[in-house]
Amino acid sequence: MKKYEGFLIDLDGTMYRGTEKIDEAVSFVKTINEQNLPYLFVTNNSTRTKEQVAEKLVSFGVPAEPKHVLTTSMATAQYIKDEKKNAKVYFTGEAGLKQALSEAELIYEEENPDYVVIGMDQQITYEKLAKACLAVRKGAKFLSTNPDIALPTERGFLPGNGSLTAVVSVSTTVEPVFIGKPEPIIVEQALKALGTPKDKTIMIGDNYHTDIQAGLRAGVDTLLVYTGVTTKEAMKEIKESPTFAINSLSEWMF
Amino acid sequence: MKKYEGFLIDLDGTMYRGTEKIDEAVSFVKTINEQNLPYLFVTNNSTRTKEQVAEKLVSFGVPAEPKHVLTTSMATAQYIKDEKKNAKVYFTGEAGLKQALSEAELIYEEENPDYVVIGMDQQITYEKLAKACLAVRKGAKFLSTNPDIALPTERGFLPGNGSLTAVVSVSTTVEPVFIGKPEPIIVEQALKALGTPKDKTIMIGDNYHTDIQAGLRAGVDTLLVYTGVTTKEAMKEIKESPTFAINSLSEWMF
Repeated sequence: MKKYEGFLIDLDGTMYRGTEKIDEAVSFVKTINEQNLPYLFVTNNSTRTKEQVAEKLVSFGVPAEPKHVLTTSMATAQYIKDEKKNAKVYFTGEAGLKQALSEAELIYEEENPDYVVIGMDQQITYEKLAKACLAVRKGAKFLSTNPDIALPTERGFLPGNGSLTAVVSVSTTVEPVFIGKPEPIIVEQALKALGTPKDKTIMIGDNYHTDIQAGLRAGVDTLLVYTGVTTKEAMKEIKESPTFAINSLSEWMF
Repeated sequence: MKKYEGFLIDLDGTMYRGTEKIDEAVSFVKTINEQNLPYLFVTNNSTRTKEQVAEKLVSFGVPAEPKHVLTTSMATAQYIKDEKKNAKVYFTGEAGLKQALSEAELIYEEENPDYVVIGMDQQITYEKLAKACLAVRKGAKFLSTNPDIALPTERGFLPGNGSLTAVVSVSTTVEPVFIGKPEPIIVEQALKALGTPKDKTIMIGDNYHTDIQAGLRAGVDTLLVYTGVTTKEAMKEIKESPTFAINSLSEWMF
């Protein structure tokens, strides 16, 4: 079997389920880490900072530092920076997006931004959405950190960022560029950050429709692990298979 | 020409433009009123009460009482009441919707409502939208007062109720029943309220895609007046014409 040199790893459903760690995944990352193989956690969660994500992983015993994390907020900031240095950006979002945009030296601007970014924002208001609509209508490029329509919580499925983004896309009739999975952009950013060759890097996740699709679309090998959203049953209906599919990361042969 | 016995009349673009009255429309309604012909102002504005709408019209010299007003909030409340008396309803919205639901003896309920209604709400919050999504996922019937995607204001086009509704429809993948124009439901409610025969009632408005479409779909005659949104130029592209189209309501021959 091919020897992989770089690992892109999803979080929820792959490393943990909510507040419960997945032991096999923790051991898997420990092994990668001991072998000095580069890895990056790739998440559609736009609200947390890389420090917060690493902290949660460390609390589960996973060897993780902020440099091992690529949030969709960071990928969004990098995407803008690659297109236009010091761009003016209006955004809705929480700490993770705010920090990512600031660290990429992008400038906050409400009236005449170059970009509008919609990220998950539990403090969303009509005025925030109004400013986004006005700026997109004036010609700002419209980005969204991720297209997730629902957030699983103990209360049930709450509105995800894809549904908040719909206010602006429906009102302006402009479709955004989505950065997060299943779009390939976040995986392309991850490959660049990791620095390993595309054909020696693998994307690992529990959700066929986000993690695996993003990997397939970015042209990397993919590993589906049945510890989260996607079931074996559901995979019977799927045409384009992942490179590998296993029950748990303890089955992976290095 | 056919003698009409009932008149359904749009407001913005037909009776006034923002804060400026349209004199010919004021005279038109005065004439109808003097002839004791029944009329009803039919509006997609869900935020105002019928008293507030009548008050604005009176300030322009239009003979108008609350009984002459059918807002989409009132039509929504009537729609629910017709389906289920004393139904439990969760809604987002402002004074107009709140009053209409209350006057229809519908009961406010957040956890297990029979209906969820999304109406324009400038105080919208994530929590309000979350409650709507949870209830729709639990099986509550999903209504929206109107599908307008944008609100024209002096700042530009702000998000309309159709775009707020999209948060719930995108997140739950359930499509709402829209009550307001261009849907026929509000016109059907208006016909019932006015009590005039369908073939002797005419829907009057300035917007082909809302007012006239609603009339066409409800099967009443229609009168397009070029004092607002739709231009003569734009009508060249339209296949299904209104019954009449005139430059101003002063041209109407009674």
